[in-house]
Amino acid sequence: MTDRLEQQFAFLNEADRLKSVLRATTLVDGSRPENSGEHSWHLALYALVLADQAGPGVDINRVIRMLLIHDLVEIDVGDVPIHSQNGHAHASVETQAAEAKAADRIFGLLPADLRDDLRALWEEFEAAQTPDAVFAKSLDRVQPVMANLKSGGGTWATYNVTFEQLESRVGVKIARGAPGIWHWVKEMALPWFKA
Amino acid sequence: MTDRLEQQFAFLNEADRLKSVLRATTLVDGSRPENSGEHSWHLALYALVLADQAGPGVDINRVIRMLLIHDLVEIDVGDVPIHSQNGHAHASVETQAAEAKAADRIFGLLPADLRDDLRALWEEFEAAQTPDAVFAKSLDRVQPVMANLKSGGGTWATYNVTFEQLESRVGVKIARGAPGIWHWVKEMALPWFKA
Repeated sequence: MTDRLEQQFAFLNEADRLKSVLRATTLVDGSRPENSGEHSWHLALYALVLADQAGPGVDINRVIRMLLIHDLVEIDVGDVPIHSQNGHAHASVETQAAEAKAADRIFGLLPADLRDDLRALWEEFEAAQTPDAVFAKSLDRVQPVMANLKSGGGTWATYNVTFEQLESRVGVKIARGAPGIWHWVKEMALPWFKA
Repeated sequence: MTDRLEQQFAFLNEADRLKSVLRATTLVDGSRPENSGEHSWHLALYALVLADQAGPGVDINRVIRMLLIHDLVEIDVGDVPIHSQNGHAHASVETQAAEAKAADRIFGLLPADLRDDLRALWEEFEAAQTPDAVFAKSLDRVQPVMANLKSGGGTWATYNVTFEQLESRVGVKIARGAPGIWHWVKEMALPWFKA
């Protein structure tokens, strides 16, 4: 049992490093870049509060678990901003290999049963095929949109994003898992791009 | 439906401010104070990974939900460090009233059904009587112990804490919901206090 606790806490202490991985998106008040730890918390809260926007067959408890662990590989590989050149193309073979290696290392700190459970949950999120993963991905895409809207443009300004690019890179993915949210957020975002 | 989404996002945007509430505890690497948003993420991950340490009758999905919202009132009232003068006494009537007022305001941004659900979950956590709340409180107490251990003392040094004080202010509460964790963590903490 002691060995098991040692492994569990080795993982939890390593996970702490996600709080030092910075994203391109800022806080809603624009004061500083968001880190991937607090981003993961905010997304889990999104799932809790927006559960009524999920499609049939979505298990919100699984979505929350998925969002809690979805960015852990960034401890090794960092965050790739969605509107940067590497962010909106399909992930390269190199990036996918680096993320898989990071997952091996980080989930590998856990006892075997937990390692296999959480690794499978992360792979399900990445594959974005199940109802739970599709909804989780939608939330992951809508949260930076809200931060950009509230902070006066954020990464849209940084990367000279057009509304058509927002729609193709982000909107399509939000609409896939949460069409009601995209319908509403789109109307709020349009004036910024027209201004 | 639009009104409902407006309320849901008003709450989620307000919750973002928890990322700017600083705690006395630092990150595990000691580099900076932890904020209450990333702390809430880390605790939810604790619940996910340490579920096998929970007693009978504990629903881990409810514990995770509870931990995601447990600190939101700090947006208005701030964090009270456990080893500070106000942290280890029973919360004053004034503090309790301020927290209740904060809960009114923050959960009050939500549609009525969600407001009532999350307010009840927060009150259950605060009361620390149900198995879910007791386990959630244990995790909330053990996470700063790990950060102090890893960062060379942290708030134990700041507040000149003795091992007896750690045991009475923190250990008793960890042991109440997670006796196996306290048994293990206590052995790891003892050498720091003897040094």
